[in-house]
Amino acid sequence: MTHPTPASLLTIFGATGDLSRRMLLPSLYHLQAEGLLPEDLRILATARTEMTRDSFLQLAAESIHARDPGARPDDAALQGLLQRIDYLPAGTDDAGSMQALAAQIQRLRRGDVLYHLSTAPKFYGAICQALAAHGAAGAGTRVMLEKPIGNDLASAVAINDAVARAFDESRIYRVDHYLGKEGVQNLIALRFGNALFEPLWNSRQIEQVQITVAETVGVEGRGDYYDEAGALRDMVQNHLLQLLCLVAMEPPARFDPTAVRNEKIKVLRSLRAIDQHSVTSETVRGQYSAGAIEGRLVPGYAEELGRPSQTETFVALRAHIDNWRWSGVPFYLRTGKRLPSRSTEIYLQFRKVPHSIFGGAAAADMRPNGLLIKLQPEERIELALMSKTPGLDRHGLRLSQVTLDLDFHQEFRHAPRRIAYERLYLDAIEGNGTLFVRRDETEAAWEWVDAIAEGWREAGFAPRPYPAGTWGPGAAVALLDRLGHAWRE
Amino acid sequence: MTHPTPASLLTIFGATGDLSRRMLLPSLYHLQAEGLLPEDLRILATARTEMTRDSFLQLAAESIHARDPGARPDDAALQGLLQRIDYLPAGTDDAGSMQALAAQIQRLRRGDVLYHLSTAPKFYGAICQALAAHGAAGAGTRVMLEKPIGNDLASAVAINDAVARAFDESRIYRVDHYLGKEGVQNLIALRFGNALFEPLWNSRQIEQVQITVAETVGVEGRGDYYDEAGALRDMVQNHLLQLLCLVAMEPPARFDPTAVRNEKIKVLRSLRAIDQHSVTSETVRGQYSAGAIEGRLVPGYAEELGRPSQTETFVALRAHIDNWRWSGVPFYLRTGKRLPSRSTEIYLQFRKVPHSIFGGAAAADMRPNGLLIKLQPEERIELALMSKTPGLDRHGLRLSQVTLDLDFHQEFRHAPRRIAYERLYLDAIEGNGTLFVRRDETEAAWEWVDAIAEGWREAGFAPRPYPAGTWGPGAAVALLDRLGHAWRE
Repeated sequence: MTHPTPASLLTIFGATGDLSRRMLLPSLYHLQAEGLLPEDLRILATARTEMTRDSFLQLAAESIHARDPGARPDDAALQGLLQRIDYLPAGTDDAGSMQALAAQIQRLRRGDVLYHLSTAPKFYGAICQALAAHGAAGAGTRVMLEKPIGNDLASAVAINDAVARAFDESRIYRVDHYLGKEGVQNLIALRFGNALFEPLWNSRQIEQVQITVAETVGVEGRGDYYDEAGALRDMVQNHLLQLLCLVAMEPPARFDPTAVRNEKIKVLRSLRAIDQHSVTSETVRGQYSAGAIEGRLVPGYAEELGRPSQTETFVALRAHIDNWRWSGVPFYLRTGKRLPSRSTEIYLQFRKVPHSIFGGAAAADMRPNGLLIKLQPEERIELALMSKTPGLDRHGLRLSQVTLDLDFHQEFRHAPRRIAYERLYLDAIEGNGTLFVRRDETEAAWEWVDAIAEGWREAGFAPRPYPAGTWGPGAAVALLDRLGHAWRE
Repeated sequence: MTHPTPASLLTIFGATGDLSRRMLLPSLYHLQAEGLLPEDLRILATARTEMTRDSFLQLAAESIHARDPGARPDDAALQGLLQRIDYLPAGTDDAGSMQALAAQIQRLRRGDVLYHLSTAPKFYGAICQALAAHGAAGAGTRVMLEKPIGNDLASAVAINDAVARAFDESRIYRVDHYLGKEGVQNLIALRFGNALFEPLWNSRQIEQVQITVAETVGVEGRGDYYDEAGALRDMVQNHLLQLLCLVAMEPPARFDPTAVRNEKIKVLRSLRAIDQHSVTSETVRGQYSAGAIEGRLVPGYAEELGRPSQTETFVALRAHIDNWRWSGVPFYLRTGKRLPSRSTEIYLQFRKVPHSIFGGAAAADMRPNGLLIKLQPEERIELALMSKTPGLDRHGLRLSQVTLDLDFHQEFRHAPRRIAYERLYLDAIEGNGTLFVRRDETEAAWEWVDAIAEGWREAGFAPRPYPAGTWGPGAAVALLDRLGHAWRE
């Protein structure tokens, strides 16, 4: 692969869709406002919807406004962005439209082209074939793919194969938008920018790791899609395993795509398989029933769906990474819908002090150290330490837990919340794949997740109900309690 | 030794002296105000000065006010303290006065007695003999000794022997007031209350340690005493070596006198001797000349003294602790008078990351991690880490150093500054010697320090001049630079 040059053209497929309106167009607007887009970058929006350029620009302007209705509009930035945009309807079921699109791409490009497939994955293959057929997928082009890629290993392989017929792997940028979050990069900076963490980052010092992605929403309009997938495929296979990889990987030699992804895949391949014999002890499956979220009554999953279902909306599991660094350290993963709060976090709990030198009172004060990497609702990193309780304690020192905010750039504290796609777009435009997912990673993750799904099926392991607004079935507490652990908070 | 009970009587020798007025009486007032003194505690003040009880109480009240003239007086506390106090003049040169004093002690005591010898050390022996002769030094009594105990090993042994004829070692409380500072106890709480520090606390992770005790004052009225001692004996032998012991010691089994002091003495006995062959490369000796401090012209040491002198007012040295934990890690000690700012701190610099995974720009950003334990002018603990510079950096991540305040008890941040004697008095009243210095420690410290002084003499190593208001002779910079190190800041 020759080193990519910045893209001169960004072509967004599915440009009228939900993701585009909520995330992609607002991200581009922010990048424009900060002067971060290459000066000559053109944007070609496409979708099946028949629409003039003016109508699309209006849709874009409305979407940008809707993202942050309270913000003062930056007219110069908005106009600067809109001027870059063209719109051309096209669909893979209309060969002529794809040919016209390819012709337009060839007219607009002045160098590299970045395609962003923000459509249903079932169209990825056909879009890529059409681009290739019209000579628009050769050298100097690359393609961003949205998750989910498939719903099991076999379907993922099929999609990846189809895309691979048009694009080399080195030109494929699989999005996991969690990787674009500032907090994830903070984690990487912290681990590898500070010599003091590496001696702590292993089974001798770490007692357990927790990765939680909690949502308060139900399935709402997405019921039919979701019922095919479930929490395991929808969240664990991608987001939670990506976060696990970043926490658990060995130090890469360089912060570059190959080195980082080579380390991540090693983690995925070290995951101990969970099968029908261990699903009962290592996993918890739940489905929300009616309950209350933030003081509001909400229906159960089956009611929302309109039929009974055996799909899980909650999963908790204990993963083991069988390598030298992590042997014996449980990685607890947990995700679900209709949980009490929206929260994404990684929590590393250190082992207890091996022995308290302090007397009875202080020994009872002791809490293990913990490092929290919070990604949602806000991004921050916290270290929990024990410190002397100030003052003239009698009967020996007293200790109390203090929490240190490691994201200490005060001056930036009130900076605007970044959309993860801002960084992902910049990286993809510049051809830097470090924060994207490689084919082997996706497929290794599917392999591990498929075994669990298969184990559930073979063991007849049905989801247990949990009332909306609770932290899943009680079994999720028991899963940790068995080893003397507890979920954070 | 039977377990001591709280003292019912505190007898202060030298009660009209400078230390008593500046520190001891104000400390007792604070303890009274907070209700921390045992309810029935009596205080017997004594000194050679003929003075009535009323006159002494007036001196006490004035001293307490002078310590913090801006504070709102707490009349109840002041009266509560003064009611506890009696005054009786006595001197070891007047046997009758000592007998009367002993008789008064016997009258006042209801249980244990704590003596505090806040006199010149040359009187310690005679005072203790007199107390013993009059039956006032037996079981249930203990004695606090002020530093400096001797000015070399031989004189320290002589004083310790004299005191030992009246008091068992377990009943002797040698003050190093640095050990009473909140910051020192914070250091202990941090090291042994948190599992995450122990894996970092060794030569594999620590590059160098610095202990600085910097004063802005000159010798002023203390010239004659000081000229006999010099910085090495006056500061290194006690304060700096005590701090070094607390940083470097192995984890004691318990936070109790025997366990802690057994670990400290091991450190002192592991110090590599510095002799006439190594003083030139391992030590720097300085004496201040005229200069400016805080915009004020100040005379040189010889001018203040009124005669030329070969005494050092500054010393910097590189100590090595030859044991498994610290082999190869230089401990830089530095203390002096007429330095640019008043500052006492311990600084542990971690090793650099072994390799930067980030590109050129971030690699240049990298600074090693550091842990700072600041004792003066304020008490706090800071951790310096690298963190991602927020924002959408192009050309790779950028890192910047952030400083975390580990003393994070916000609610206590504006609590009054404690005098170290508050804790030391409480501990001695209760019979807890953990924060006091044992005989073997004092003597081991003298042995190490004597060798350096002897080395200087044999090598004819005279102090080099440094202008008042600078950080000592340039050689103090070169001492670190030789190993690629630099003093903090």
